[in-house]
Amino acid sequence: MAVPGPGYSITMRIAAPPSASAAGDLTSEVGRAGGVITAFDVVESTGTLMVVDLSCNALSQEHADEIKAAVNTLEGVTVRKVSDRTFLVHLGGKIEVTSKVPLRNRDDLSRAYTPGVARVCMAIAANPDDARRLTIKRNTVAVVTDGTAVLGLGNIGPAAALPVMEGKAALFKRFANVDAWPVCLDTTDVDEIVRTVEILAPVYGGINLEDIAAPRCFEIEARLRAKLDIPVFHDDQHGTAICVVAALRNALRVVKKDISNCKIVVSGVGAAGNAIIRLLLLQTPADVVAVDIKGIVYRGRDGMDPNLADVAAKTNHTNQSGTLKDAIAGADVFIGVSAPNILVGDDIATMNSDAIVFALANPDPEIDPLEAQKHAAVVATGRSDFPNQINNVLAFPGVFRGLLDAGARIITDSMLLAAAEAIADVVQPEQLNASFIVPSVFDATVAPAVAAAIVREAADAREHVTHEGLSSVAHTSGATPDVEGFLE
Amino acid sequence: MAVPGPGYSITMRIAAPPSASAAGDLTSEVGRAGGVITAFDVVESTGTLMVVDLSCNALSQEHADEIKAAVNTLEGVTVRKVSDRTFLVHLGGKIEVTSKVPLRNRDDLSRAYTPGVARVCMAIAANPDDARRLTIKRNTVAVVTDGTAVLGLGNIGPAAALPVMEGKAALFKRFANVDAWPVCLDTTDVDEIVRTVEILAPVYGGINLEDIAAPRCFEIEARLRAKLDIPVFHDDQHGTAICVVAALRNALRVVKKDISNCKIVVSGVGAAGNAIIRLLLLQTPADVVAVDIKGIVYRGRDGMDPNLADVAAKTNHTNQSGTLKDAIAGADVFIGVSAPNILVGDDIATMNSDAIVFALANPDPEIDPLEAQKHAAVVATGRSDFPNQINNVLAFPGVFRGLLDAGARIITDSMLLAAAEAIADVVQPEQLNASFIVPSVFDATVAPAVAAAIVREAADAREHVTHEGLSSVAHTSGATPDVEGFLE
Repeated sequence: MAVPGPGYSITMRIAAPPSASAAGDLTSEVGRAGGVITAFDVVESTGTLMVVDLSCNALSQEHADEIKAAVNTLEGVTVRKVSDRTFLVHLGGKIEVTSKVPLRNRDDLSRAYTPGVARVCMAIAANPDDARRLTIKRNTVAVVTDGTAVLGLGNIGPAAALPVMEGKAALFKRFANVDAWPVCLDTTDVDEIVRTVEILAPVYGGINLEDIAAPRCFEIEARLRAKLDIPVFHDDQHGTAICVVAALRNALRVVKKDISNCKIVVSGVGAAGNAIIRLLLLQTPADVVAVDIKGIVYRGRDGMDPNLADVAAKTNHTNQSGTLKDAIAGADVFIGVSAPNILVGDDIATMNSDAIVFALANPDPEIDPLEAQKHAAVVATGRSDFPNQINNVLAFPGVFRGLLDAGARIITDSMLLAAAEAIADVVQPEQLNASFIVPSVFDATVAPAVAAAIVREAADAREHVTHEGLSSVAHTSGATPDVEGFLE
Repeated sequence: MAVPGPGYSITMRIAAPPSASAAGDLTSEVGRAGGVITAFDVVESTGTLMVVDLSCNALSQEHADEIKAAVNTLEGVTVRKVSDRTFLVHLGGKIEVTSKVPLRNRDDLSRAYTPGVARVCMAIAANPDDARRLTIKRNTVAVVTDGTAVLGLGNIGPAAALPVMEGKAALFKRFANVDAWPVCLDTTDVDEIVRTVEILAPVYGGINLEDIAAPRCFEIEARLRAKLDIPVFHDDQHGTAICVVAALRNALRVVKKDISNCKIVVSGVGAAGNAIIRLLLLQTPADVVAVDIKGIVYRGRDGMDPNLADVAAKTNHTNQSGTLKDAIAGADVFIGVSAPNILVGDDIATMNSDAIVFALANPDPEIDPLEAQKHAAVVATGRSDFPNQINNVLAFPGVFRGLLDAGARIITDSMLLAAAEAIADVVQPEQLNASFIVPSVFDATVAPAVAAAIVREAADAREHVTHEGLSSVAHTSGATPDVEGFLE
């Protein structure tokens, strides 16, 4: 299924004779070698020489080497240099810190820095809540990782994780105008991670945990939620769960099934699987059966950690044991967040009619989606080259936009469900079909819809909490001791 | 000496009758009340009503209240609202995180985020030094505080310190294109601060410590320098010392004295005083005498901490004891980084001829500079409303620009001295006089000159270190396993 994609695109600087056919010869040769040309720019042209930058997508480094070798075989042609466009994009980093205020002259300095800033500092010292109005805390999220579970790469450490966190920060800005900052921690000790985030928290209005390996991520999140007065969200858990629930909502609409009649099998009980199961259970499906590398999770299974035991207690009503294949026989929905190529078409054939298959393992799904399509009514993956890509970019920007706008101090399950519903409902009834159950990641209406849903839920939660008398959790907007107020 | 400045500027929204004289009446009344008008904008105008936004500088909140009351006494005039322009500048924070890479379409996403980013991560995992090329570490500095010594405000905590750190970050960008990020720590424990910064370090190419109270700041800096492979610079110490040494260099040129013949008195042995003394000693003045709140620092004085004992050991050749007034009699240079109004003109009169007085306590200097000028040849302060403002903005942006460009792993005393010389030398011989010993903070040539000096010293240090065989300290630029290299 692999096709040359922009994730591996190269630019070759090529010296060639200035003949009429040179350009055509070059592009033909690259095409023969399997490269997909994306740009052709003449850098220099004289009576005896033409220098061009030829950009193309390749499959891998080996493939790029082959393309280069093929071009070099042409008469009079030399590849002078090959650059890797993905690396070029990363040179010097992908984000920057810019000033929102002018600093043209002494007056500007006097307001944004000394001496004027001292009054703003004193206002916050007198009323700490004003930090949410008068500082970057208003709009800023920490993207926190220890580098232990980065993409599918595993434990590569904090420095190597930084490009992912920078990319995440760029996405936060692009899709929801949230300022996000990478916090890559050079420790994997749970106590140290919790304490470090606690120490850093004053600057931030929210914490996005990222790519922290299970089961440590569960404890870290729980302890931070208990300690901090800002929301803590583990994207690999809740971001994925929101998107899966959104996609499932629309997939069920396509097949005209109600979740209360569905048996749902979840393969993988790590960060994502856990959160998916918990969010599914809030919608009272007929049953959820969890499966991990040792098979079906059931009450009484040997050697389960507390987290798995809790999953076993809440799922699998018939306490079925056995393999993944046993689990999916007769199931309505399969959700995989586990490992590549663990199912074949015949397995899907054992599911109920109008089966729904979400094979989300990256980069290679639990089952080839083309194979799954032969037996399922709706198929989704995490891949961008197949319909129904389930991608967390649909959730996290809008979630934090909403949390920040609401001044939320916690994040609740009802917010997660509301976010999922908002994503699902961006797909209009007339657009909905088996190949379009989630909106495009570039749909600009998604993040505002998610943010609005979060703000609504936050308002409801505040009202509810206040009614119970726990007003300390409610957001109070304190007055700043300025002269009288701000002009609108 | 106080005049209404832009640090306290207000905008009044005023409803007035639309008479021909209304505008004149308003501005006259504000002027009579002592306000300095900076803008007059008509917001709304009808046959019966005129609404204007009138901006003016005031001295204080009380003064702003007086101005408002004065305007309200005018016939038919009502001040509807008073806004504080300094607070308006701070709404929502002063910095933001922006993307340097396009994220327009799927191809962009594939390069800046998944799947392309995975190869960049793996390159850094294989060669950690590549983080200095392929991530924000290349250009990013942490501005770290615990909020214990913010401006002259004392221990106001990390949240209230944030506006200062944001301002600093804005200045870093404005003057040297350095990306700086506020790290406001919710702890004052030295061990925790050191460990937290160590844990955060992977993202940064340098650490700028800021507004951390002495003597804790000395231990924090020393321990971080020992642990980290990126330079650690405490601006309150070294930034101030660089600027003082730069100003002194030019002041001595003005009075035609050589530092080796000068007795220098330093009042205040906190963060700034300590660093100033140490940098002065490298230039072998005739003598330095340090004075703190208990009087002259001398060998054998009771109750000195290790830091003060070290200062006593290295200064005060005659082991003089006594008061500040005893110290400055016969001195050539007075440098105050201590407390307001501790000297009078008669004290300065006891100094040597062509005395140099740097009264840097903020906001009120050790001596009224107009008083000092009667007896000294050169006077400088930290104030922006007096000639010769000694302001750290002259140093820190260029210092970190240079450190980042050099890929420096340490900062040395010779770099600090080189930075001071570079700042001093921006003032051309024909410009130099008693009222112009340092360049303007808005002089765009300062930061590049400082950066170039740092880069030169870093290169010298590397060569020196390498010659001694300690090549591990030297910066090595490892090859990234990309296809072949990057196009220029």
